[in-house]
Formats: sequence, C-alpha cells, structure tokens
Amino acid sequence: MSERGGHGVWGPGRPEAEPIAHGGDLDAARRMFPDAPEPWIDLSTGINPVPYPCPAIDASLFHRLPSAADHAALREAASRAYGAAPDRIVPAPGTQILIETIPRLVSTRAVAVVGPTYAEHAAAWRRAGHAVSTVPCLEAVGTAQVVVVVNPNNPDGRTWPASPLLALAEVLSARNGLLVVDEAFTDLEAVESLCPRLRPGLVILRSFGKTYGLAGLRLGFAVAEAGIARRIAGALGPWAVAGPALAIGRAALDDAAWRRDAAAARAADAGRLDRMIARAGGTPVGGTVLFRTADFADALGLFRRLGAAGLHVRRFAEAPARLRFGLPADRNAWCRLSRILR
Amino acid sequence: MSERGGHGVWGPGRPEAEPIAHGGDLDAARRMFPDAPEPWIDLSTGINPVPYPCPAIDASLFHRLPSAADHAALREAASRAYGAAPDRIVPAPGTQILIETIPRLVSTRAVAVVGPTYAEHAAAWRRAGHAVSTVPCLEAVGTAQVVVVVNPNNPDGRTWPASPLLALAEVLSARNGLLVVDEAFTDLEAVESLCPRLRPGLVILRSFGKTYGLAGLRLGFAVAEAGIARRIAGALGPWAVAGPALAIGRAALDDAAWRRDAAAARAADAGRLDRMIARAGGTPVGGTVLFRTADFADALGLFRRLGAAGLHVRRFAEAPARLRFGLPADRNAWCRLSRILR
Repeated sequence: MSERGGHGVWGPGRPEAEPIAHGGDLDAARRMFPDAPEPWIDLSTGINPVPYPCPAIDASLFHRLPSAADHAALREAASRAYGAAPDRIVPAPGTQILIETIPRLVSTRAVAVVGPTYAEHAAAWRRAGHAVSTVPCLEAVGTAQVVVVVNPNNPDGRTWPASPLLALAEVLSARNGLLVVDEAFTDLEAVESLCPRLRPGLVILRSFGKTYGLAGLRLGFAVAEAGIARRIAGALGPWAVAGPALAIGRAALDDAAWRRDAAAARAADAGRLDRMIARAGGTPVGGTVLFRTADFADALGLFRRLGAAGLHVRRFAEAPARLRFGLPADRNAWCRLSRILR
Repeated sequence: MSERGGHGVWGPGRPEAEPIAHGGDLDAARRMFPDAPEPWIDLSTGINPVPYPCPAIDASLFHRLPSAADHAALREAASRAYGAAPDRIVPAPGTQILIETIPRLVSTRAVAVVGPTYAEHAAAWRRAGHAVSTVPCLEAVGTAQVVVVVNPNNPDGRTWPASPLLALAEVLSARNGLLVVDEAFTDLEAVESLCPRLRPGLVILRSFGKTYGLAGLRLGFAVAEAGIARRIAGALGPWAVAGPALAIGRAALDDAAWRRDAAAARAADAGRLDRMIARAGGTPVGGTVLFRTADFADALGLFRRLGAAGLHVRRFAEAPARLRFGLPADRNAWCRLSRILR
C-alpha cells in the first residue's frame, strides 16, 4: 500500500524485504572491482559448474500451456529420484518461491531456524509475520512450533542424521507445528534424505538447479504428505513451472547415472579446492561437493586479491573471516584461481 | 496437514483447490473422443496461435541464476510497453501465481468479482479465506472492500472504460480496499489500460503468454504503486522468473511493431471466425481478437461434432449453450474447423 491509505488492506508481516546478500551477483562484483579482467569467474554460488546436457526442447513447450500430463511426468521422475510417492511432490519455479510461500500458508507461530544458515529462511518467516529466532542446534529449539533445518547446511556443510530430525518432526507435529528440512544440497552428498520417510508435519525442500547446473531454469520441489502437498500446490496454481523446465527436469531427474558421475567428479573438484585453500592458509569450516567454506586470517585481503583478478567468491557479513568458494568450471578457471590461492 | 494433527498449523482458507475447468487440456479431450484424428487442434484457449519469433537463447540463461540486471532490463521493457514506471512492475512466472498470491497478502475482506469471468479469481480469494460474491456489474459491488474486474472480460469480451474503474479504485482505497483489474487480453485490443494511471489501492495484472503465443514460458506482471509492487515482489522472492523468460520477455515487450502487426492479423482472424460461427448458427456473445464466444441452440452437439473431428473448444458448466473458440493457427486448422462450422 502506498503511504496514503496505510496498511489496512495488507495482512500481517513486514511490507518489504530487507536486502539479503546472495552469491551470483556479478554486476555488484564488477562495480566493486572495475579494473578486474573479463570474463569474471563466478565462484560465489553453490551451483554445479558442469551443467546437465539438456535435451533439445520442442518449441511447443514454449508455446502451449503446460498440461496435466507434463506435470504428472515430472512428478513421477521426481518420485523415482527422491523416493516419495508422486502425490507427495510439488514442483515449483525454484525452491526460493517455496521458502517465501510456505510461511504465508501457516498460522502465526514461533519459528526457530537452526543457523547460521541460508538467510532467506529466517527472512521469509519474518516477512510473513512470524516470531523467528536463530538457534545453534536441534536441542535448542525450545517451544518453537516451526523449525527450519538446512541439511547439509549452507555454508558450513553441517549435517544431521535422520533419526533426530524424524523425532523432532513428531514432537512438532504433536504441537500442531512443522519441521522444514531444506535438502538443497543433498543430491550429490552421502546425507540421508527424509523424502522416503515423510510424516505429518514434515516438509522437505529439494533444489534442482544447483545439482544440475541449471539455476536459470527455475525448478525446485516441496515434498510432504499428500494433504500438505495439495495445500502448497494450491498456493502456486496450476502452471507455476515453465514448459521447458518440466521437460528438462523430467529427463535430468531420471538420469541416475549422470548424477552418480557428477557426484564423483564434483567430489574430486572439492578435494582439489580444499588443497588450494589449505595452501593459501585457509582453515576449513566445511562445505558440500558444490562449495567449500574456510576461515582466513585476512579474508578481506584475499577477497580483494581475488576480486582484482576477476574471481568472485562469497563473503558473510556476520562472519568476516569466512569465505565460500564455488567450484571452477574449467581449466582456465582453475588456473586463475590457483594463481591467487598460493 | 494430514488427517492426523488437524489444520492447526495452517492458516485460514480452504485446504485445497476445487478442480476448475480450463482450456488447454488436450489430454482430457483425447479421453473424451478417443477415435478423433490426430493431431488435435486446440482451440480451447485464448493464446495467440502465431507465436512471437523468439530470439536465440544463450545457454548461460539456463545455467546461472537470473541477475538483478536481467530483472531490471525486463522491468524497463515492460515499463515502455505498459506505460508505468519500472519500480511499479513486478515480473512473475505467469499471472496465475499472482492471482493465487495477492489474496494471501491481503487481510480477510469482503470480495466482489464482476462476473461471470475467469473462474480462478473467485476461487483464489476463497482459498485464501475471504468472503467472495460474484456481481454482475461495477454498480453492484456494494460494500465490498476488494473488487476484481477482468477487462476485457473472458469469455464474453465485455469492456469497461477507465473512468468508472478509476473512480471505483478511489472508493475502495478510501475503504482500505483494493481494485484488481486483470488486463490479460488488453495488449491487442482497443481497451484503455489503467497502467499509466496507477493510484493507491489499484493492482493491474498483465499477461505475457497469451499475446505472444508463449504460454509455456510462464511470464506475467503485476503493475501497482511502488509500495504495493514491493509487497508482491517480496512474496515471490528474487528469482521467480526463469532466465529464458526474462530475456525473451524483454525482446518481445520492446517489439511494438510486432504487436501492431499481430493485433491487425488476429483481428482479421477473429472476423473470419465470426463469419464461420454465424454460418453455423451461433449467436455472438463477444470476445477479444484471441477468442470468440457464442451461444448455440445445440452447443453440446456441436462440441461433440468438433471433438469427433479432433477440434477442442471450451465449454462452460454454468452456461451450457455457450462455446468459446480460440483462433486456428494455420490453413489446415482453418480448413478442419470450416468443415464442421457449416
């Protein structure tokens, strides 16, 4: 609502987002380091730098509305990939919109986010009017009715085994609450997914773009018991996912061999990155096979040396000694990184 | 929430969508008419059958997260096309998700939908917990705080001039309410858009896929004063629109010459369709240049003859004598339609 007229028509929650820093904003990096050589190398995200080889896209997927059959085929492929029945899978144009939408479907609650973690979770629950606290571990969630856990966690790679999460989901469900587990980085990890073990009061988020290197496609999933899944699907409407994303997502999710190979190749990359970080004096914090996080005695200085060389990594306002490195895409990018991390 | 545990955690509103019939579901048509010849001709939507010639899409638009600059460029192109400042334009993955989202951002209200019209409006406000009535005209909105008008209306093509709509927006704003004007079919029509005349309490929806024949791309816009625009943008999050949609949308919205030619060509198509409908005994109800609606003495019989010939048109449960025809795409489709409408 404009200044005039007040906020009478708009529901609870903050009127607008506070800006949250994200990886992937090369324009901002260019402004910070105007003399850096082009092309920039973006290591500020946790997106697989070797994308899934997309099948050719039929033009009709751009022209016509996605059909019920297109949706069903994607849900079935996701069912095979994630181990949950198709009616428990809600495709969305990326998980970010699910992070925004779910808090608006839930009655106002006390929410605990296990963190530090991906900042959009706490921000989205706050924007929707909930009381949000950040807690350091599952044991500290207290009387919160909604708990959010990112597993493995971003940026420190912390993981949780299934059993305490499932136990917490049951405690929260008995409180009429909800456990949200963001499995954005689970695909290529040894972490156990909760998707095959759904229960009341458990919502799982699965990212597509990070694993498959197709972040621009905008595809992600909520996985939950059928009643919850219908609620979330209803809030997105029947055509939220684009036709090309439905088709490419279906092909990629059914390609378990590609996923196996990608997990092995990215793990090798992550090991190589770890060695470079160690050589540059970094103290490893953790990570996943798609990013490595480390603390440095002079993180700002290293960030600047990287930036001056056209390499963009992720900083954290709340942890100034910390830097997060995504994986270089090719030999040239590895060489340019290696020249600074020495 | 599942049966166990009740709905305690979920906010007000209906737990799930009632199924709403839509055009574009050729799979349902195939089930109804299993012996019809392939390929089916889908005339059940109001989507331009001659799509905008998409520019080549750089693969990086699939791979990387859409950037702030990508978003800004699309908003600027939309600003030029719609006549509202860029900070008043909210890109979304189709207008349907805006139809779902806006009711969830608004405190519970009495809502009047001017109808009959596109059924998702009333359904979405109901799903979000509002009290919804359908009223026949602007004069009948009574004490409603939120009013929804589709201009030109779907399926009957009814239009409203700007002045009573702007007057209503001011009345509703004084009530802390909202006027939602869905201009889904305005692009190719002579109807005056309200986008250049924004004011408090006015939200306009603009569809992209219908005009440009790119419904599978999923792109649409909310246009509103900056404060409202920020609210809606916040609910969608920073990456709701796919990279290819941002780039193609930008090119298409800046192509006023294509839009002019399309308006003339589709108007000629609509005239030709009117003559065929009249020859088949139809009484014209109205329409836009992308669809024509008519009543028939034996609408069901005609629907069946069309279906048996592989031609899918739109029926209306609440108006059994009524059929809506989209435009045939090519000479073959015109011929097949002409053989039945005689």
